Amino acid sequence: MTTAEGKIAERLMERLDALAAHSDEPGLLSRPFLSSAHATAAGVLREWMAGAGLIVRLDAAGTLQGWLAGADPDAPALLLGSHVDTVRDAGRYDGTLGVLAALAAIELLRAEEWSPRAPVALLAFGDEEGVRWPVTLTGSRALAGILDIPTQLSARDADGIALGDALDAFGGDAAGLAAVALDRSRVRGFLEVHIEQGPVLEREALPLGIVTAINGASRFRLEVMGRAGHAGTVPMAGRSDALAAAAEMIVAIRREGLARPGITATVGRMEIHPGAVNVIPGRAAFTLDLRAPEDAARADALSAIEEALSSIADEHGVSLEIVRTHDSPAAPCDPVLQDVLAEAVEAFGVRPRRLPSGAGHDAMAMAALCPMAMLFVRCRGGISHNPAESIEAEDAWLAVRVLAEAIRRLAG
Amino acid sequence: MTTAEGKIAERLMERLDALAAHSDEPGLLSRPFLSSAHATAAGVLREWMAGAGLIVRLDAAGTLQGWLAGADPDAPALLLGSHVDTVRDAGRYDGTLGVLAALAAIELLRAEEWSPRAPVALLAFGDEEGVRWPVTLTGSRALAGILDIPTQLSARDADGIALGDALDAFGGDAAGLAAVALDRSRVRGFLEVHIEQGPVLEREALPLGIVTAINGASRFRLEVMGRAGHAGTVPMAGRSDALAAAAEMIVAIRREGLARPGITATVGRMEIHPGAVNVIPGRAAFTLDLRAPEDAARADALSAIEEALSSIADEHGVSLEIVRTHDSPAAPCDPVLQDVLAEAVEAFGVRPRRLPSGAGHDAMAMAALCPMAMLFVRCRGGISHNPAESIEAEDAWLAVRVLAEAIRRLAG
Repeated sequence: MTTAEGKIAERLMERLDALAAHSDEPGLLSRPFLSSAHATAAGVLREWMAGAGLIVRLDAAGTLQGWLAGADPDAPALLLGSHVDTVRDAGRYDGTLGVLAALAAIELLRAEEWSPRAPVALLAFGDEEGVRWPVTLTGSRALAGILDIPTQLSARDADGIALGDALDAFGGDAAGLAAVALDRSRVRGFLEVHIEQGPVLEREALPLGIVTAINGASRFRLEVMGRAGHAGTVPMAGRSDALAAAAEMIVAIRREGLARPGITATVGRMEIHPGAVNVIPGRAAFTLDLRAPEDAARADALSAIEEALSSIADEHGVSLEIVRTHDSPAAPCDPVLQDVLAEAVEAFGVRPRRLPSGAGHDAMAMAALCPMAMLFVRCRGGISHNPAESIEAEDAWLAVRVLAEAIRRLAG
Repeated sequence: MTTAEGKIAERLMERLDALAAHSDEPGLLSRPFLSSAHATAAGVLREWMAGAGLIVRLDAAGTLQGWLAGADPDAPALLLGSHVDTVRDAGRYDGTLGVLAALAAIELLRAEEWSPRAPVALLAFGDEEGVRWPVTLTGSRALAGILDIPTQLSARDADGIALGDALDAFGGDAAGLAAVALDRSRVRGFLEVHIEQGPVLEREALPLGIVTAINGASRFRLEVMGRAGHAGTVPMAGRSDALAAAAEMIVAIRREGLARPGITATVGRMEIHPGAVNVIPGRAAFTLDLRAPEDAARADALSAIEEALSSIADEHGVSLEIVRTHDSPAAPCDPVLQDVLAEAVEAFGVRPRRLPSGAGHDAMAMAALCPMAMLFVRCRGGISHNPAESIEAEDAWLAVRVLAEAIRRLAG
């Protein structure tokens, strides 16, 4: 590592720590979209970006954009970045790492006196976690031209403040949101570095991973209706025990999930009625969260689950109702961009592990605008959305070098 | 049916309806121990009992005792009866049927000018449901000499009223409770008629059943500790999903219960933590209610369940804690008294179906004093503790005739 490189690597970790101080709540990290912590963090970030030679501006959607001009201004631009908002009581790497690693990659390239042929932009989105308003991805959706602007602007937070008003107060421009959208023909692609938020890379002792797709997700509410009864007087054989049936269904859901690579099938909530120690449950309601890298695989898994659950309901003499409460399609990562990242990873002597992303990201919205790909960084214990979120400085630095190599390839 | 018989049969159903009007709450039947509804119901009942020629007194525990002298005053007495208190929003047959059917049986025998050789007593206990104080069976335990008197008297209701004070105000005698206990050598046995509160007789189209035992019961609180995680980012294979493990355990509990005749094994409550649609459950707590006619069978079932659950916990990489929260031994019904009831049932052309009682009854306490047996009457849909509680007048009358025959045999 040269002295210049060492300085950039060190500064990356220092900046990750420094941004974590910008919080709306003392003693913990909470930086919701358009909050005062978001404003001060963006102020600091703007200086760092300008210091790296980027032309910086806050766009109408509250995204900080930093542009590096290309030798060929007509070449399609390469976009980099992630988000700077956080959940409540957050870790310091989710989102912020993607912004600061991209900034470090640009600094690294400029330290090598490399200049891009195509324009390069660093994007610091402000609204990925969706904690303050019941809508999300304002910045990336606006850029991709897929924002439902009236819905987004009229959403209100817990204090009744409309997102549009808060955006104007922040220095954005509610009236100018539509103009944020980029022209598809002018964009080469979007690359996002992010902590994995899962345990796969750590388990395989790999610092980095190449994302194949952001999983599509469906959520359901399932309700089993049986017949309540006295736990002592109704013999086992003639019961319509809603919980006994639901338990078999949960076992079947897990079995179907385990049988299909890349699928997750999770029952996270459950309620039993009437819920007394000596009463056979008459009703059991539970949720299902189903995700897959391909929409067809998700649909197949759902069919298999529905079939299994229907048989179980029949066997138990209970009725079953399934209501879909959420559905988002999978966003596949661009194969060419994946290969660019994989070759760069391999060039550093690391096996290029490809894996889906179970969580959503700004890249999901950007996929509507341009080819996108993501580079995952190993995080300790797979822990995220928690102050215990932790990464290795070596892994972060490797991500910076891989990203710099990809930028060289794609914008050079 | 003779005219006299028809009158007794008709009056039985009229009296069941009439007692249902004695309630502490308008529009529904609620008659807790020592309530004003209990007092007025006991007043009416006292007159009916006296009208049947019984010598009536309220004992120190609030039980209405009606005695018929025997030709041989030294012969061990035959005790009959059940309870007159109810749950909140109760049906009109639970308990009350046992008291009024025994009264009708005595009326029937006296209409036939039959006189007993041994003394016969009708007991209208006041505290079987245990809804007002956190203790129960005051009347039957006092009579059996197994009452923990200081604990019982000092128990307080929701208004802070001690049971002992309420008992004195009702006309009982807290200070005289110990003297209520009967001498074992002076008692032949106790017979209790009760609605089944379960669906077995209705399913088999039988009006009556002979109880083999009041089931022993154990209750447990089980807690499964796994590892919470992101529903999208943690692959299925490496999870320690507390709910997935608990679901397999509930399936195993039901399997063990189904495999053992007479056993009930019920999971009635369940709580999941953290309980979010997109979070793998880290903790699942549930209850187990386990009942069996024999204590050895209950212990065997528990061992099998514990073994199965322990394997499941190991397979899922979760920990399991089991805490026993309640334990009451089984109370077997006396084989000779069972046979007397069975022969009487058979004499009326009905198959004598023997079945355990899954619910507790005053007879459970009386078993400590003397041989006891119970006659179950079919109830519609097995429904109890509910205004929809319902019986057929024909079934009630058959119970009266069977009981009269048993009295003739045991006290004649």
